[in-house]
Amino acid sequence: MTSLPPLFSGLPYDNLSPVAQAAYRARGAAATLAPLPRAAKDDALLAIADALEVRTAEIVEANGKDTARAREAGTSESIVDRLTLTPERVRAIAADVRDVAALPDPVGEVVRGSTLPNGIDLRQVRVPLGVVGIIYEARPNVTVDAAALCLKSGNAVLLRGSSSAYESNTALVRVLRDAVHGAGLPADAVQLVPGENRDSVRELMRARGLVDVLIPRGGASLIKTVVEESTVPVIETGTGNCHVYVDADADLDMAVDILVNSKAQRPSVCNAAETLLVHADIADAFLPRALDALADAGVTVHADERVIAYADGSKATVVPATTEDWETEYLSYDIAAGIVDSLEQAVEHIRLWTSGHTEAIVTTSQQAARRFTQLVDSTTVAVNASTRFTDGSQFGFGAEIGISTQKLHARGPMGLPELTSTKYIVTGDGHTR
Amino acid sequence: MTSLPPLFSGLPYDNLSPVAQAAYRARGAAATLAPLPRAAKDDALLAIADALEVRTAEIVEANGKDTARAREAGTSESIVDRLTLTPERVRAIAADVRDVAALPDPVGEVVRGSTLPNGIDLRQVRVPLGVVGIIYEARPNVTVDAAALCLKSGNAVLLRGSSSAYESNTALVRVLRDAVHGAGLPADAVQLVPGENRDSVRELMRARGLVDVLIPRGGASLIKTVVEESTVPVIETGTGNCHVYVDADADLDMAVDILVNSKAQRPSVCNAAETLLVHADIADAFLPRALDALADAGVTVHADERVIAYADGSKATVVPATTEDWETEYLSYDIAAGIVDSLEQAVEHIRLWTSGHTEAIVTTSQQAARRFTQLVDSTTVAVNASTRFTDGSQFGFGAEIGISTQKLHARGPMGLPELTSTKYIVTGDGHTR
Repeated sequence: MTSLPPLFSGLPYDNLSPVAQAAYRARGAAATLAPLPRAAKDDALLAIADALEVRTAEIVEANGKDTARAREAGTSESIVDRLTLTPERVRAIAADVRDVAALPDPVGEVVRGSTLPNGIDLRQVRVPLGVVGIIYEARPNVTVDAAALCLKSGNAVLLRGSSSAYESNTALVRVLRDAVHGAGLPADAVQLVPGENRDSVRELMRARGLVDVLIPRGGASLIKTVVEESTVPVIETGTGNCHVYVDADADLDMAVDILVNSKAQRPSVCNAAETLLVHADIADAFLPRALDALADAGVTVHADERVIAYADGSKATVVPATTEDWETEYLSYDIAAGIVDSLEQAVEHIRLWTSGHTEAIVTTSQQAARRFTQLVDSTTVAVNASTRFTDGSQFGFGAEIGISTQKLHARGPMGLPELTSTKYIVTGDGHTR
Repeated sequence: MTSLPPLFSGLPYDNLSPVAQAAYRARGAAATLAPLPRAAKDDALLAIADALEVRTAEIVEANGKDTARAREAGTSESIVDRLTLTPERVRAIAADVRDVAALPDPVGEVVRGSTLPNGIDLRQVRVPLGVVGIIYEARPNVTVDAAALCLKSGNAVLLRGSSSAYESNTALVRVLRDAVHGAGLPADAVQLVPGENRDSVRELMRARGLVDVLIPRGGASLIKTVVEESTVPVIETGTGNCHVYVDADADLDMAVDILVNSKAQRPSVCNAAETLLVHADIADAFLPRALDALADAGVTVHADERVIAYADGSKATVVPATTEDWETEYLSYDIAAGIVDSLEQAVEHIRLWTSGHTEAIVTTSQQAARRFTQLVDSTTVAVNASTRFTDGSQFGFGAEIGISTQKLHARGPMGLPELTSTKYIVTGDGHTR
C-alpha cells in the first residue's frame, strides 16, 4: 500500500525520542518472539546463562564502579551489599536463568475451547503480552531475572533500573543481548531504557500503545509514582502491610511461632507482618508470652492503649501507637499491636488499613477460619501459617516477577502465566451471521 | 481500637464529596456481597426482573422526559430510538436479568489448588472485584444489564450514564435498589453516581483505592478520556477497527459472503469490518465481485491506488483512501480497501492500524491460516468466519459486560468470570519458614 510505513522493516526512527525508538524496536522484537516455540526461547536462555558465567569478570568490574560510587556518596553498607555482584552471585543468577529455562512455556496453552452450536470452533489461547516495561530499584539481579522471565513468556522487555546500578545493568544487558543475538533471536528483545534521568521514566510511563504493561518493583514511593502517572497499564506490586490476627480460640504456642516468624524471619520483605491484632478474650494468656517472644527477636512493639497495659513486667520495648502506625509498612524490627473485641472488628481493622497483601489468622476454630477467609479481601489469607509463605517460589511457581497487590489481571505472586494475555481463535467454514 | 473508624458501620460521611460517599457506601455493600452464596444473589436478580415488569409504567414515563428533551434538542431519530424504552423493551430487559440469574456463579470457583511439599494446602479462589464503576452513553438498558452482571458476580456497581438518559437511569436505579433491598441485600450495591456534570466523572476516575475497576462503554472519545485520565484501573473496551484479509488461496464465494456480512450485517457495532485487504494474486478474480457485492449492500469503498483501478465498470461507489482511512472506525456503510503483496504485508498493515479487536482471514490454505493466526495480535482472529462473531453471546458466555481490547486482565468478550479477581488461601498447621 502506498502509504504503509514498514513497521517491522525499520521505521523512520530519526523523528522519535530515544525511548520511543527503543519501544518501537521492542515491538518489532515482540512480533518475532510471539510465535516462537519453546525450544528457541530455552536455547536463548541457556545461552544467556553460559554467557553470564563466561563474562563474569566484565560484569563484576562494571559493578565495582557502581559500588565505588555508592560508597563515595556515603551509601549505607547494607544497600551497597544489595548492589554488589560477586563471581559467586553471578553464578547464582546464571543458575536462576537455567531454572527459568526448565519451566513450562505458558504460551500456546489452550485456556478454554469448545465447538459452538453453529459449528464454529472457538479456542482461547495464551499469548505473550508483547512489550513489558520493568521499572526497578537497586538490585542488579532483577535485570537478568526480569529479562529471563519475559523472554521465556515470549515478551520483549524494556528495563529501567536505578541510576545507582547503571554500570552493572549496562554490562549485564550487553551480555544478555549478545547471547540472545547469538541464539538467533532479536537482540532488541532485551533493552535498557536509554537515558539516566527521570524524563525517560516519564516517557516510558506515557508510552501507551507501544508498551503493553509496566511493572514497578521497589519501594512504595516508586510504585505510587508509576501507578499515578502511567497511562500504560500498570501491575501494582509489593507493598505489604500484613496482619497477624490471633483469634480467641488460638493455640498459644502456634500463635507465638507464627507471629515471630511472620515478623522477624526476614523483616525487610513485603510478606513480613507489620501489625498484630489480638482477640480480647485471649489477650491475658497470649500477650505476655507474645511480648517476650517479640523482645527476644529484637522487635519493638507499637501498642494501642489496651496492649500497653501488658507492657509492665514484660521484657518488651513498647511504645504507644499512633494512627500512622496502623498504615505503616515498617520493613524493620517493629510491629504495631492492638486488641480487638471480635473477629469482625479484626476484619474491619484489616480492611481499613491493609495494603491488601497477606493476612494470617491463628485459630483452632473452623468457623473462625472460614469467616476470616471469606471476609478478608487481600491477595492471600493464611490460616495457621506464617505470612511469609506468600511467594512465587513457596507457592511452587518456580519463578516470580513480583507480587501483585491489585485485583485486575493478576493478584498475589506472579509467575510466567501472569506475563501472558490470551486471544480467541474462531475457525469456521465460511460462517456468517 | 480507640482510633478505629468504623468502616462498615458508618463513616463520618459529612466531610466527603457525594461521589466519595457513594464509593464508600459501595465498598460497604461489596463487603456484604462478597461472601454471599449464589441463591441470595439470584433471588435479588429475580426480584429485580419482577420489579421491572411491575413498575414498567414508572420507567416508561421517566424515559418519556428524556426522549422529549432529546427531540427538543434536535437529536437524530436514530439516537432517540436507542434512548427509548417501551413496555416491550422493559420486558426484554427483565428477561435478560432472568437469563443472568440462570448463569453459573463465578465466585468461589477454585481456579487452582495443590498441597505444597511442606504440607500447606494452597487454593486460588475466584472472588468479586469489589466496586465496579461503569461509565456509559445513551442506552438505558446498559443500566440494568451492568447492574445485573455486577450483582451476580458479587460486585457493587457505581453507574454513570449519560445526562441524556438521566431521568430513565434514575427511575431504573430506583426500581433496582428497591428490589435489591426487598431481597435482603444492601441497596447500595447499585448506585447512580451523583451529579450530572463532568466533575463527578472526573472524581470517579480518580477514586483509586475506593473503586476497583472502571469499565467505559461507549464511543472512542469517551473511552480515550477514561483511559487517559483515570488512576483507577480501567478495562478498555470496544473500539473496533476490524480487518478482513482475503488470501491468495481464498474461496471466492466464501470471501464475498464473509466480507459483506462482516461489513454490512450491522455496521454500527464494534465487531463490524472497517478495512478490506486483498492479496494481489487474487485481486483480478475477487475485486470485481467484491466491489459489486459491496455496492449491493450500499457500502462506499475508500480505495487505495491499486483498488481504484478496479472501480471502472463496477457499480461500486469508490473514493480514494487517505492515510486517515486506515485508522478510521467508520461504524457506517463505508470500508477502506487495499491490495497487499503477501500475507506478511497484510499482517504488517493490520498490526500498524488495528485497534486490536478482530481480524479475519479467508483462505483455503492451512499454512496461511496458521501463520495469520500466529502473527496477528488482536483479541480475536477469525479463520473463514465473519468478524461479527466476536461477541459474548455468540461465544456462549450468556452475557457480556463489554469487549476488552486491552491485554491485561481480560481480552475479548467479557462475561461473568472477567468481573472477578482471585485470592489465595494458604492453610497450614502452624507452618513457619
